[in-house]
Amino acid sequence: MDERVREHARTLVEWSARIEEGDDVVVRVGPDAHELAVAVAEELGERGANVVTTYADAEVTRAYLLGHDGDFAEDPAHELALYENADAVLSLGGGRNTTETADVPSEKRQAHSRAHAGVREARMETKWVSTEHPTRSLAQQAGMSGEAYRDFVYDAVFRDWEALATKQEKVKERLDDANEVRLISGDGTDLTMSVEGRVAVNSAASVAYDSHNLPSGEVFTAPSATEGEVVFDVPMTIHGRRVRDVRLEFADGEVVDYAAAQGEDAITEVLETDAGARRLGELGIGMNRGIDRVTDNILFDEKMGDTVHLALGRAYASNFPEGREDEANESAVHVDLITDVSEDSRIEVDGEVIQEDGAFWFEDGFDG
Amino acid sequence: MDERVREHARTLVEWSARIEEGDDVVVRVGPDAHELAVAVAEELGERGANVVTTYADAEVTRAYLLGHDGDFAEDPAHELALYENADAVLSLGGGRNTTETADVPSEKRQAHSRAHAGVREARMETKWVSTEHPTRSLAQQAGMSGEAYRDFVYDAVFRDWEALATKQEKVKERLDDANEVRLISGDGTDLTMSVEGRVAVNSAASVAYDSHNLPSGEVFTAPSATEGEVVFDVPMTIHGRRVRDVRLEFADGEVVDYAAAQGEDAITEVLETDAGARRLGELGIGMNRGIDRVTDNILFDEKMGDTVHLALGRAYASNFPEGREDEANESAVHVDLITDVSEDSRIEVDGEVIQEDGAFWFEDGFDG
Repeated sequence: MDERVREHARTLVEWSARIEEGDDVVVRVGPDAHELAVAVAEELGERGANVVTTYADAEVTRAYLLGHDGDFAEDPAHELALYENADAVLSLGGGRNTTETADVPSEKRQAHSRAHAGVREARMETKWVSTEHPTRSLAQQAGMSGEAYRDFVYDAVFRDWEALATKQEKVKERLDDANEVRLISGDGTDLTMSVEGRVAVNSAASVAYDSHNLPSGEVFTAPSATEGEVVFDVPMTIHGRRVRDVRLEFADGEVVDYAAAQGEDAITEVLETDAGARRLGELGIGMNRGIDRVTDNILFDEKMGDTVHLALGRAYASNFPEGREDEANESAVHVDLITDVSEDSRIEVDGEVIQEDGAFWFEDGFDG
Repeated sequence: MDERVREHARTLVEWSARIEEGDDVVVRVGPDAHELAVAVAEELGERGANVVTTYADAEVTRAYLLGHDGDFAEDPAHELALYENADAVLSLGGGRNTTETADVPSEKRQAHSRAHAGVREARMETKWVSTEHPTRSLAQQAGMSGEAYRDFVYDAVFRDWEALATKQEKVKERLDDANEVRLISGDGTDLTMSVEGRVAVNSAASVAYDSHNLPSGEVFTAPSATEGEVVFDVPMTIHGRRVRDVRLEFADGEVVDYAAAQGEDAITEVLETDAGARRLGELGIGMNRGIDRVTDNILFDEKMGDTVHLALGRAYASNFPEGREDEANESAVHVDLITDVSEDSRIEVDGEVIQEDGAFWFEDGFDG
């Protein structure tokens, strides 16, 4: 076994999920994440945790959904009981084909998802963490060889998380105290957003930081009252379609005009989902410099150092003070769009520059 | 997909487990049983059942057990809750190496198994069925090519189960009414067993027949007061060791002498487990003529037409009238030994021949 697989498992179990003796853990195993599952099982055994492994396979899901007719049962008792009694849920992504469910009608997928809202909630009340094993399918999605892709994934996962958390804490505190964030860049972006009364999340790849992805490495909050224009120059895939150079224009918090060099219809579809889809749910600042290229996988792309992402749609409750979670933007979608801020760009907080051309105020090379 | 995989899935879901709309089903997927899992998921979807798939992998189990130190938690809450809330459990065997846990100390395996007694009981209170997908590993265990092994498995699984159940019912009734069964063959076997007050099971590969294996095809009961000698000429693997031509001598229900042409130490180990291991827990008559060769897999071997098997150790509660289950022989082991009865052999019930050279009294070629 590649020694990095063990190290990945150790990071997941120890740093990310903070597994303790006696924890009842569900490990969801993608079909090509087998090796990581073996390493995770050994780590969990060493810690005296208890394990149920589930098989998270897109071909099985597709076959079930295509076979099924009529309404889905709400929160099946056995599945709900499994997660309600779990202390932690570790999802080891490792699919074989990122487009396996492309021919399942989206209404059916959505209906199945809606019927499992309680199961999902139960899962999110545990110490849950999602990670990805570097599979051939993900390498292909990234346009990379398997070997290069494995190097990429482990560079992203093996960070000095403690040190990154300390850096991110500075950004979080700045955002927590702020009223307004402004994003400016040479490509025509000039956007202002209110972040008043919001709580930024220092997402340091650990449940101890309210962060549930490995890798992570971002600080995010929930903006409102968005005004101005923004261009997203990082290409992505949205609902199976390639999207490039999306331009959004906001007035009074809402998208009032938009365009894209490619995949404009995908943006149209997103914006037409519901009223909340025309508002922003997230402003995220990518701070993981182990991620140095776009791989067409949102788990990695949005964490890339020297990028900013904005999501159309649903906001996270974690960005609101307790008791005010109902102020979060509601939508059936949460679609991230990413822009490179490493050159000819700056982020201002209440009029002060906190980042210029990718360098934060506390870093070398900053001359804001 | 091989059309036979679909047919296997249909037989499992429809005939064996009798899945109904709304059933909460757990599907345990061996790592190489993926294709069967996809076909089963489609069948379950079509029937409107609800599915949780678990990953039943020996490498994961081995890593967990080797990593673990000290006592195992008793019946972890999440695992117990999953099975307590399930209506059916379908186990799709499909390992990659039948000897994967060979280097896990057996005390550790047993301790883990003992700690999961409640989970196992919960599982056995559902409509549970175990089957095997024809994997490369099982083909190798059988000494066969993959293609020939697939033909073998599907010949065993695709029977006219209704018709076989009718035939088996005759044998069951005969055994239920009987006091004594005698087994005689030219190799020196002459064994008598009491079956008075016992209930034979017509094992027709369906929960409707209290039968939990697909394939099945046997009638079995729980003997006592065994006297005489028996030779088992079907070779097998017991606890990882090859065993051939085992001879057991019984007096007053207990083994008093034994020998084997090969693997005698494995028999010694079995007999020394506990007091119950020296008594018989099962007398089974194999009636699945789709199984026409030994493949070193007990799920198939013991069902082979024209064979008889006897198990040292634990008896099944299903062979006892309600309220008298405590009469069942108790032991930590249940080890089947098999003998060919197709030639120079007969089975007598209360002095009457019911089978001679493999032909039952109700079949052509019988001249008992």
